[in-house]
Order: sequence, then C-alpha cells, then structure tokens
Amino acid sequence: MRSTATSASPRGIAAIVGVGEKLGHSIARKFAHEGYTVAILARDLGRLSRFADEIAREEKAQVFAIRIDCSESRSIKEAFEGVLSLGFVEVLVYNAYHPVSWTPTAFTDIRVDHFEKSLAVSSVGAFHCAQQVLPGMVDRGRGTILFTGCLASVNGIAGFSDLCCGKFAMRALSQCLAREFQPLGVHVAHVIIDGSVAAPRGTLVLSTSQQRLTSSSSTGEQQYGGGDDSMDPDVLAQTYWQLHVQDRSTWTQEIDLRPGPRLF
Amino acid sequence: MRSTATSASPRGIAAIVGVGEKLGHSIARKFAHEGYTVAILARDLGRLSRFADEIAREEKAQVFAIRIDCSESRSIKEAFEGVLSLGFVEVLVYNAYHPVSWTPTAFTDIRVDHFEKSLAVSSVGAFHCAQQVLPGMVDRGRGTILFTGCLASVNGIAGFSDLCCGKFAMRALSQCLAREFQPLGVHVAHVIIDGSVAAPRGTLVLSTSQQRLTSSSSTGEQQYGGGDDSMDPDVLAQTYWQLHVQDRSTWTQEIDLRPGPRLF
Amino acid sequence: MRSTATSASPRGIAAIVGVGEKLGHSIARKFAHEGYTVAILARDLGRLSRFADEIAREEKAQVFAIRIDCSESRSIKEAFEGVLSLGFVEVLVYNAYHPVSWTPTAFTDIRVDHFEKSLAVSSVGAFHCAQQVLPGMVDRGRGTILFTGCLASVNGIAGFSDLCCGKFAMRALSQCLAREFQPLGVHVAHVIIDGSVAAPRGTLVLSTSQQRLTSSSSTGEQQYGGGDDSMDPDVLAQTYWQLHVQDRSTWTQEIDLRPGPRLF
Amino acid sequence: MRSTATSASPRGIAAIVGVGEKLGHSIARKFAHEGYTVAILARDLGRLSRFADEIAREEKAQVFAIRIDCSESRSIKEAFEGVLSLGFVEVLVYNAYHPVSWTPTAFTDIRVDHFEKSLAVSSVGAFHCAQQVLPGMVDRGRGTILFTGCLASVNGIAGFSDLCCGKFAMRALSQCLAREFQPLGVHVAHVIIDGSVAAPRGTLVLSTSQQRLTSSSSTGEQQYGGGDDSMDPDVLAQTYWQLHVQDRSTWTQEIDLRPGPRLF
Repeated sequence: MRSTATSASPRGIAAIVGVGEKLGHSIARKFAHEGYTVAILARDLGRLSRFADEIAREEKAQVFAIRIDCSESRSIKEAFEGVLSLGFVEVLVYNAYHPVSWTPTAFTDIRVDHFEKSLAVSSVGAFHCAQQVLPGMVDRGRGTILFTGCLASVNGIAGFSDLCCGKFAMRALSQCLAREFQPLGVHVAHVIIDGSVAAPRGTLVLSTSQQRLTSSSSTGEQQYGGGDDSMDPDVLAQTYWQLHVQDRSTWTQEIDLRPGPRLF
Repeated sequence: MRSTATSASPRGIAAIVGVGEKLGHSIARKFAHEGYTVAILARDLGRLSRFADEIAREEKAQVFAIRIDCSESRSIKEAFEGVLSLGFVEVLVYNAYHPVSWTPTAFTDIRVDHFEKSLAVSSVGAFHCAQQVLPGMVDRGRGTILFTGCLASVNGIAGFSDLCCGKFAMRALSQCLAREFQPLGVHVAHVIIDGSVAAPRGTLVLSTSQQRLTSSSSTGEQQYGGGDDSMDPDVLAQTYWQLHVQDRSTWTQEIDLRPGPRLF
Repeated sequence: MRSTATSASPRGIAAIVGVGEKLGHSIARKFAHEGYTVAILARDLGRLSRFADEIAREEKAQVFAIRIDCSESRSIKEAFEGVLSLGFVEVLVYNAYHPVSWTPTAFTDIRVDHFEKSLAVSSVGAFHCAQQVLPGMVDRGRGTILFTGCLASVNGIAGFSDLCCGKFAMRALSQCLAREFQPLGVHVAHVIIDGSVAAPRGTLVLSTSQQRLTSSSSTGEQQYGGGDDSMDPDVLAQTYWQLHVQDRSTWTQEIDLRPGPRLF
Repeated sequence: MRSTATSASPRGIAAIVGVGEKLGHSIARKFAHEGYTVAILARDLGRLSRFADEIAREEKAQVFAIRIDCSESRSIKEAFEGVLSLGFVEVLVYNAYHPVSWTPTAFTDIRVDHFEKSLAVSSVGAFHCAQQVLPGMVDRGRGTILFTGCLASVNGIAGFSDLCCGKFAMRALSQCLAREFQPLGVHVAHVIIDGSVAAPRGTLVLSTSQQRLTSSSSTGEQQYGGGDDSMDPDVLAQTYWQLHVQDRSTWTQEIDLRPGPRLF
C-alpha cells in the first residue's frame, strides 16, 4: 500500500519493522522528514495505512505500509519482497516485539507457545529481516541496521523470561552482525531504551505498571530519573537518526537511553 | 529404559538433559557416583542406553535412559512424564544444544529453520524442561538447576549467530529463574565453559576447529591458556556437583571455567 | 590566561580537562564554536596557551588556558578556583590520563609509583574535578559531566594494568555519579573510545603500536573495523556535543565508539 | 610473629592479606587446616597475633602474624620481606579494604584523602602485593592469587564512589593478571561476595545497614535471597579453597556468591 506518489528517493529505503503509535511511528516520521522513502511494517495493516497516509502528507514523503507478522517466516519473506521491490534498503530498524504483560507472570504460568512466539518475534524475526537486507547493503558497502532493546536485553528479570530471553538473543544478534558486517561497511547498533515511551505530543498512554521494568539503582534506593517520567518518542527517533548518519570513523555499537528528571 | 535395579534413592532424581560422550556423560556419572538416581536424556536412545548400562554398572546406581528431542515441546513433555514418575527431581542439568558447525558460517548462508532450531533447543527447550521440574522443587523448598553456557553466552561471535542467540537467551533464562526461585529455595546457576571439552580419559576427539570459539584476550595477543588445551569433562562434572552441594548461604549464579596451561 | 575578550557567555563555562592536540583540542573547539566560554586545562601551559589563542581566534570565542596537574589535589583545587571564577561551569569533560607506553609492560616491571600516578590521574583527579563543579550544577538543576574511557575501561588487558585499573575506576565513578546526580538534573555519561584517535585534519600521528589496544572480536579472527583506521577527533567531539545537548527525557549513560571501514 | 613451631610445610605459604574476625580469619583457618603454613597480615598486630595463636593451636599449624598497612608501599614491602622469608608463597588472598561507612555518603562530602586511601588499599595495595609474590610463582609455574570483590566491583552505587572505584580497579587488576599469568601457570580469580558476611559460628555482628549494598533484582521487587540473610565465612572460605585446588584444566576467573534463603 503506497501513500503519495513522488519520484523514487535517491537516498534509498528506510524499512521500519514494528510500527505502533509511539517509537516506530516517530522513527518512520523522522526518516521520512529527512528525505527517505519509508516502508513501515506491522501486523495491523489498517492502522499502518493511516500512519502511512499521515506521515506522507505531513512530511511530503513516500511512505509504504506493508503487513508483516514477525513470528512467521513466510510473512517476513513476502513483506520484504515488497520492500526490496521499492529499491535499495539502506536502513533497517527492527522494533518489533511480541506483546507481553507489563506485570510479572509466575514462571510456571507462562505458556510454552507464548514463550516461543516471543522468541520468534524478538530473535528469529530480527534474524530473518536482517538476512533480507544485508546482501544489498554489502553490495553497496553501506547501510544501517538498528535494533531496539530495553532493560530486559541486559538483565534477567523475575516474571519476564519471555521478554528477556528474546531481547538477550536480539542483542547477541546485533553483536554477531556488527562483527561480521561492520568491516564490510554496514553499521549495526543496539539501542537500549531503559524506560517507558510516551505517546507523541506528550499524551502518556502507558499504564504505570510498565514503569516497573525500568532500572532502579542496585541498591534499590535511587533511580536514574524520577520513576514517573517517560521518554519522548520523537527525541528517541532523533537518536536513531544520529546513529544512522554517524560518521563511519566513529560507529557506536551500543547505546543506552534513560529518562532524566522532568523540568518544572 | 531402566538399568540396574536397587532400591529407590533417598536423594531424589538428577535429570541430565543433553548427554553425549563428554560433559553430559561425566555429569551423569558423577551424580550417580554420589548416590543419585539419574535420568539421562538425549535424542539417540541407543547410545544413551549403553551409557546408562555402563554408568549403572560402574557406579552401582540406578540410571534411566529417556529419549528427548529438545526442539519439540511434545517430546519434552513426554520425556518428563517419565522422569517425574521416578520421583522428586532434585537436580536438572540442561546441557543440550543444537549441533552447529565449528567453523563460522556466513550470516546469509544460515538457514532460518536451522537458526530457529538452535533457538528452540537452547532456550525454548530449557524453558520447558525447567517448567516441568520447578513445581516439585518449590513444593519442597529445594532443588538445583544448572545451565551449560559457553563463550557464545556472553559474546556475539561473527559467523555463529545461531549459537550465540540461543546461548544468550539461555543465560537470560538462568537469571530470570534465579531471581524468581532462589528466594524459594531453588539454586539456579549458569556455567560458562570457555574452551573445548576433551573426551573422558584424555582421548581428545574434537577437531581443532572448535578451539576457535574459546576466548582470546582482548588484544588478540595472549590467551588465558594454551590454545591446544582442552578441559577434562570429569573435572567439569566435579564443578557441577560442587554447585549442587554449595551451602545455601553462599550460592553462585554464574561461574566461568577455562583451561589453564598443561603440566609437563 | 585568557584569550580574546568579548562579553561573558550566557551559556556558562565548558571546562575541558586533559587537552592535547587531538581529542581534547577538538572538544574545546566544538564547545567554543557552539558559543561556550571554554576553559582548557592541561599540564603544559605553553602549548595550552597556543591552543587557546588559536581556538579563540578561529571560533571568535573566549578561551581560557589554565594549568592543571591531575595527579595533584592542590593543583586541581587551584585550577578550579580559576575556572569557577569565570562563571557557572555547565560542562565538565574529563579527558586526562597519565601517559602510558602503548606496548605492554611485564607486570613486575611496572613501578608502583607509576601505577599510583595512573590511578591518581584517571580516578582521583576525575573525582576531585567532579567535586568542584557539582555543587553549582545541583544548584541550577542542570549540567553535564563527560568522562573519556577506552577499551581498557571494560576489559583487563595483559601488560596494561596501570591503564586498566585507572579506567575501570573512572567508569565506576561515572556510574556512581549518574545514579546520585541524574535525578538532580546533572547528566553524567561515559564515552568508550575503542580505537586510536587521529590528529585533526587527517594527520595521523599515533604509532601503529597503539592500535593494539583496540578491540578485536572474541575469536581473534575479525575486527569491527579495519585495524589501520583511526578516529577523527572532530567527529568524536561532535558526539560529546550531542551528549551534552541530549534531551533530558533520553539521557545516555554509556556509549561506545569504534572506527568503521575506510571509504575509498 | 610466629605461632607454634613444627617443621616447614612442604606445601608452601598461604598469605592472607586483610584479616579481621570474619572472612580473612576463616580463610586463614581453612588453609591452615589443609596443611599450609599461613601468614596473616593486617594493621592491628595485637588482634592478629591472637588470631594466629588461636588458629595455630586449633589447626596444629604454623601461623605467622605480620603487620601490614596496605595503603603504604613501604609497609607492604617490609611485610612481604617477612612473608617471603618463610618460603615459597604459593597462595595470595587479597582481602583488604579501607573501612567505609555502610550508609551512603553524599558525593561532595567524601574527602579526597579518604577517596585516595580507599583506592590505595583496594588497588595499589593489591597491585603491590601481587608484585611481591608473582616472580616466585612464575619460577615454579604454579600459584594462586584470589581477590575479594563485592557488588561494588561490578556496579556503581550512589553514595559509595570510594568503595566502587577501588573495587572496579581491583577487578581490572584480576583480569590483567589472569591474562598475563595464567598461561604461565598462575591461577588468578576474582570472588564477588554479594552479601554481608556473618561472624563465624553464626554470631551476626554486622548492622543491618550493610545489607543495603547487596544486590536486589533490577526491578526492585525481589531479591536473590532474603534480605535478612548473611553469609557464613567458613563456607565462603571453602570456596576460596576450592578455587585454589581447582584442576588447572578448568580454571575459574570470576565467581559470584550470594545468600540463598534461610532454612527453617
């Protein structure tokens, strides 16, 4: 599904996988704003199409909405046939995750099929999407792959083994790819977003229960920032953009982002 | 399949998942030697039965060989119905991994189904086996779960994303379980075996190519131990045993093991 | 020693501690370019004064050269009396280190006084400088402290215990300060520069021996980037600037930077 | 000061630096029990002499009490002249730390000289002691050096920068030494004791305030073990012993130890 029709972008395609109303949406808008043709991918094609229309209109950009189910290999393959037909995929942002409850679940109550699906989306899906775009990037000696992680990427958390196992695996993938493909000109980075993400324009939609997954200090006495803060997805998207345009003499492999205190 | 017939052990069952001729075999023998009834589980029931006979005879212990395919939920479920019918599973050692090539594979040459299977064995299988034994351990307020990791558990390695993603996920699982279940009396530890494992009795059967996955120093100039060394599985099994009998006032969550230099 | 004389900056002072011809110099120039009054501090006041003149002239900024010996508490105290007399220190960049040989030194050949001095500069000096500027930052609820680390901040390296111990300690300091002061509005970040830094304008002045301290992959077979690359200090300075202006809803605590492949 | 007089041990000397009434005392007793001639070193020679007498009497071992101030190079040098005159130092346990308050101190209230002293004891002292014993160990191709760390070795904690910087540096030292000396036959390990240590025989003497430095889960909701537990120093000493006698085919570089739940 294509929104707006201008000529093909000279900058290549930015494919954003996992686009809801917050981070993925802001990243798509940012790359569109910077002149990229953007492909946004998620499961809900209806909502995705509205996003595509909106971004295309506001940013005067080409935006394509393509359905993908990151837990299904066939769906990934078909979706990327569409993406690759648009031109050279210069940027892949992998932002998909299987929905989890934001309250801890007793380990023995987690269903195996739910655990499998979480792994499938966080790691097999990321693996498969990367495989689709890397040959083109290696051919041209350039490209950027950005993975979205969180606190669960680096800490096992009681009650969230489904999330943690998938996110640890995704971090492993980012390191393996960095080591193999950075010498070939492809920048691979892992972004640890340690906090909840607000809806754009300041409308906080997350329940406070999600806040529990943000890091506290080791002593449990203090937190990096106030626990009631959330991160602005447009600001986060700015970081994704900076990673993409980062000079190749100084490439970041891993960066963490946390809310500081609110200003009054 | 049960080998030898003495009376039921008062010590409970030690279930060793992933038993080949090296580490799993030595661990099974060690727990048998210490008086445990041992269930050994792997895919190749013929070989497994020979191991069970041999260990039962030599250690005068009860050893049960049970077929398991750790990439299949149904197989895990059935296997553990067998294991749990033997009595209280006091110890679970998860040592299974999907066979990988010991030379690096170009990322785009790794098949999705192979990657999926590696994840399934290293993380979904580990998850599922832990779910089978934890209720009994929590009921009794004691038990030990030991996971076998390697260098790929903590470092992304170019050409080994299948192995690394699975092993990172398994490490996440060990941390999640430790945080949830150690307060309930279950000791959960992750053992990083950073080196190749020799066949017992000194018969080295691994190709030297496996050595590449052992860690070198960050500068690439020196290694912890000589690169031609391998680790004695009977000595490693001793460490698993020590972790099991570790006093609960001082529980280890993670330990690394590497070969030092040979003695001449 | 003050170079150029325009009116006091409304932006506050940026104090750059440890300014040689490469990274510190580029960071100072960047903050001057962005409108800050800059205080540059190092041991060699003659060279420092030439830098101050040059940056002041080229960037039309106020630049003050102040002598400091980061291994001496008294010197730090005096130097910062000078810095604080200039106005509110809004930014502290701690970039000093005790010169080390870039070839490994046998452990037993490292002199205790050399080891002590390395610790003094990397950690006591950093501690002391931070103490000078934090009260003012806390009063105003804003400020940025950036520490320069390297591979030796996160990996023990044979033959470099003097460097590694100091850099590990500095990383600890950055974490402690982040946890205590980020809730109070002060952004504290640790920058891991994993590679050699070129002289500005592309004149590479480092011997190739320094390259040994850059990370190779765990398998020793591949590196992130080509081993003959070095990092452009002006590009690195750009990252320091971005960390300073990072929106407080998304603060980075740690970032790594490595050279990618050269372009041909 | 020498207690008891039997013939020189064939096993070499175990030097335990930093011996109070808890961990150091238990380690000294354990090595004495296993047949080592033991040198115990600390600042308070009177108390140390009573410990030496007591251990010598109870374990029928040679125990030497030698005064050391680990913040003073000269004192370390003199103390080790004494230790080395006893014979081959086969084991060095470095357990010393500068006393810190167990409640957090506001960063700007920590005195520079206190911070310096903490660094001096945790890292310069450790460096210097290791230098004294390594030549003999390398000559014989064997020996063990064990460093005592804690949660502050791997996490920056608000209010404890003096402790954390010193302990991070000590961990760096252990890694540097492992990489340089393990290929030469010297086992170097870092023990992370994440919890408070009880007085031997169950007499808990620590105030509960110390408990704050033990790790809680990342979510702040659960802890590894019950927060009111402390670790038995005799059990910890057993782990030090196991690390010393660990087969050189499987050497541990880092191990963590935490209290599990109490038994009722």
